[in-house]
Amino acid sequence: MLHLYTDSSPNGFKVTIALEELSLPYSLHHVRIDEGDHQQPDFLALNPHGRIPVLTDSDTGVVLFESAAILLYLSERTGKLLPQNARARWEAIKWLQFHASSVGPLLGQRVYFELFANAPIAEAIDRYRNLTQEMFAVLDRLLANRPYLAGEDYSIADIAHFGWMHIAQIVHFDFSQYRHLSEWYARIGARAAVQKGITLPAPATGA
Amino acid sequence: MLHLYTDSSPNGFKVTIALEELSLPYSLHHVRIDEGDHQQPDFLALNPHGRIPVLTDSDTGVVLFESAAILLYLSERTGKLLPQNARARWEAIKWLQFHASSVGPLLGQRVYFELFANAPIAEAIDRYRNLTQEMFAVLDRLLANRPYLAGEDYSIADIAHFGWMHIAQIVHFDFSQYRHLSEWYARIGARAAVQKGITLPAPATGA
Repeated sequence: MLHLYTDSSPNGFKVTIALEELSLPYSLHHVRIDEGDHQQPDFLALNPHGRIPVLTDSDTGVVLFESAAILLYLSERTGKLLPQNARARWEAIKWLQFHASSVGPLLGQRVYFELFANAPIAEAIDRYRNLTQEMFAVLDRLLANRPYLAGEDYSIADIAHFGWMHIAQIVHFDFSQYRHLSEWYARIGARAAVQKGITLPAPATGA
Repeated sequence: MLHLYTDSSPNGFKVTIALEELSLPYSLHHVRIDEGDHQQPDFLALNPHGRIPVLTDSDTGVVLFESAAILLYLSERTGKLLPQNARARWEAIKWLQFHASSVGPLLGQRVYFELFANAPIAEAIDRYRNLTQEMFAVLDRLLANRPYLAGEDYSIADIAHFGWMHIAQIVHFDFSQYRHLSEWYARIGARAAVQKGITLPAPATGA
C-alpha cells in the first residue's frame, strides 16, 4: 500500500498528479504546513528535512522524500510515465533533473523574494526573475519542436515542471510571452489526472 | 565512447570522480567558463541551458546534462555505485535527489550572496547560511548511524554531496561543528578516485 504525506503545494502536486495518472490506490495524509505538522516527530521520522511530499510503500519498505525520487520510483514500479526507448528515457530523466535542480529551486527562491521577504530587495528579485526567465526561454525553445519535454511521450518530466508552472501561473509570474511553453502548459493542464491532482489534498489553496 | 565536457567546478567534480571510480575510459573536453566557452553554439547544441557538465555516449547516442542525471546514467550503465538491494538503492537515489534539489542549489545561492553579489545583503546571506546549516545538520544526524549516505555502501549520493562540500570547504563555509559530516568528508576525500577527480580538468582552481 502506498501512503502519501503531502500538502497543497507545487512539489506535492507532482506526486498527486502522477498517482492519479497511474490510477494507483494510495492513502492520502494531509500534512498541514501552516499548523506545523511537518515539524512533528512522527513526520520528521519519515523525512528528517521536514519537507513534503513523502511517499511510503508498505509492500517494499521504501520510504521516499524528494519529489523527483518519488516520480522515478512510481515510474519504475509501474513501467509507465517514462519512455521505453533508452534515448527517450534518458531525455525524460535529463529534463526531470533540469526541473529538480534548476527550475524548481529557483522558482522557489523567486517566490520567496517576490512574495515573502521582509522588504523588497531589488538585486535578489532581479536575480531570480532573470534566472527563471532564462529557464522559461530554454523550455520554450525545446517545446517549439516537440509536444512533451522528453519528445513524443508525456512523462514525469512534464509532471514535475507542471507542478511549479502551475504555481507560477497562480502567483502571476507571467510566462505568456513564451508561446510554446504556454501551449504546453494548457495541454498538460487539460488532462483529467492533472486537474484532479492539483486539488489534492483539499482544500487546495495553491499556496 | 564517453565524452565529458566540463570545467573545474562542484558539479563537474561529481562526474570526474564517478568516471575515475568506475575506471571508464572517457575523453575530457575543457569548457572554459571564464572564457565564455559555455555560450558558444557548439556547446549550446549539447546543453541549451549553457551549463557544465555534459556527457555524451557515442555508443548509445545519449546526450546528458544535469550532474544527477549523468550519475544515474553511469550507475545504470555499469551496475556500480548504486546498491543492488532495492531499499538501499532507493535510499541512495533519495539522498542523491536531496543533494540535487536542496544542498547543491542552496550552496550555490550562498556562494553567490557571500562571494559574488555587488554588495552584502544581510537578509540573503542569513537566509542561505541558515538553510545550508539546516541541511548540514540533517546530513550530520544521518551520518551518525551509517558510514555512507545510503547506508553501508558508497554510492553516487556520496559523490554528488562531496562535489559541493569540497567547494564549501575551499570557500570556508565552516562545517567542522558537524562531526559526523566532517568525518564522512575526510573518508570520501581520502579515496584515490576522488583525489584525482577534483584535479580535473587541470588547472583546477576549485572555483
